[in-house]
Amino acid sequence: MYNLDIILTHQDINVQAVKGKACVAIDTLRATSTIITALIHGCPEIIPVSSVTEALHLKKNKAYQDYLLGGEIEGQYIENFHLGNSPIDYCNISLQGRGIILSTTNGTRTLKKLKEARLVVICALLNARTVAEWITEQESDVIICCSGRRGNFSLEDFLTAGRLAAELRAGKKALAISDLAFTAAAFYENIKKSSTNNNTILKILKNTDNGKRLIKAGLEADIEHCSQEDITSLLPQYKSGSIKQLEIPDLKDSMPRSSVI
Amino acid sequence: MYNLDIILTHQDINVQAVKGKACVAIDTLRATSTIITALIHGCPEIIPVSSVTEALHLKKNKAYQDYLLGGEIEGQYIENFHLGNSPIDYCNISLQGRGIILSTTNGTRTLKKLKEARLVVICALLNARTVAEWITEQESDVIICCSGRRGNFSLEDFLTAGRLAAELRAGKKALAISDLAFTAAAFYENIKKSSTNNNTILKILKNTDNGKRLIKAGLEADIEHCSQEDITSLLPQYKSGSIKQLEIPDLKDSMPRSSVI
Repeated sequence: MYNLDIILTHQDINVQAVKGKACVAIDTLRATSTIITALIHGCPEIIPVSSVTEALHLKKNKAYQDYLLGGEIEGQYIENFHLGNSPIDYCNISLQGRGIILSTTNGTRTLKKLKEARLVVICALLNARTVAEWITEQESDVIICCSGRRGNFSLEDFLTAGRLAAELRAGKKALAISDLAFTAAAFYENIKKSSTNNNTILKILKNTDNGKRLIKAGLEADIEHCSQEDITSLLPQYKSGSIKQLEIPDLKDSMPRSSVI
Repeated sequence: MYNLDIILTHQDINVQAVKGKACVAIDTLRATSTIITALIHGCPEIIPVSSVTEALHLKKNKAYQDYLLGGEIEGQYIENFHLGNSPIDYCNISLQGRGIILSTTNGTRTLKKLKEARLVVICALLNARTVAEWITEQESDVIICCSGRRGNFSLEDFLTAGRLAAELRAGKKALAISDLAFTAAAFYENIKKSSTNNNTILKILKNTDNGKRLIKAGLEADIEHCSQEDITSLLPQYKSGSIKQLEIPDLKDSMPRSSVI
């Protein structure tokens, strides 16, 4: 029997409360989707940082001098950085053997708050089933940590959290589920139940605050990419300030729809 | 065109952010349900206070010496108080012409945080349709303020908020709805859509953290009472530290099910 709860924004993460717990970090649009996509395309390691200054400082270190710089500030590209926070960027460049220093507004800050957790896995819709399966095997309380945006609830993160909560509820292990985790699971399940086609999740993501902002910035393809469920069995883990994959992806399954079309 | 947003706990209410807005205060289990029930049964005024000390201090004032003392501390009755926070208490006593000083853990604290709002109405499932109709007439942004419990999300408050959001979305006025308000509306609508009978809401309330706590305390009848939708057209308003009804209730409709059964 373990407890399942959800935190809605990285501002709400109480560092002490997550200590020793199994945590899942979610930033569906777009940081965790981007991290997963980079690993799919061969990147062996991502170092998440919470500012451009920190990224540039790290890059000066000999151990990281060959790393690519990626990230965004409030959704905008950063001068002299090799990559943005658009997962599509990470599909169109050879990342075999290239580490990345990644600075993002919300997703990275979520991870930084989880340093005291027993373990942290990175989740987006892209790898949700794998994360759910793996969590089920843990003998531990689970906290799903959504990133949110500017301290506000993000529907796309809650949807991904709901996907996990729904899978965990349907699992074999007894589960003490919080009000919020129940709500998220029911929200996701009902959306799936009332869906007439595969585009329902995409349609919902496009209508979120973040989705509308991305569309306005000409980044609709990012939403399409991030709306794909279970395209990979990758399970990135955040540990000692670094993100590395735990599983070898099935390359046949891991091609993002945006590059296939 | 107006904006609709939801705040999940009274701890999250930013006093400056609600300034000048139309606010709806919700504490489904049980403060706002109790307030509405007291007004249904003839109570002309409720003074919400946030501590027992404050209640006793106010009672010493000549203007309030005839007021009844009501409230709870962490769900428990308070010594020497006339009434608890159980709405059933307020069905079984003559309240005609009797004001009440009400001290509750979460609901009252929500109201205290809303002193700078342009207007504040009190909502529970009992009067949700009336609140929704009235809000639709306001030319103002609307913030639905859930009370939560101990700083945590409460499903029963989110459900009532979702009921309002769903009614407002279905209304005629253009509405800029936040991610959270959309989620709440979809959550409520899907529950209603998948309901096979009238007991779905009750079943869900019984399964919430607060619901389980009340059942353990032998207060299941409170949940049954609070689960009733639209039994009154009362519209209590919180203004200058006092709650009074704005509409004459239809007495035929206002009998709580628990007293009818």
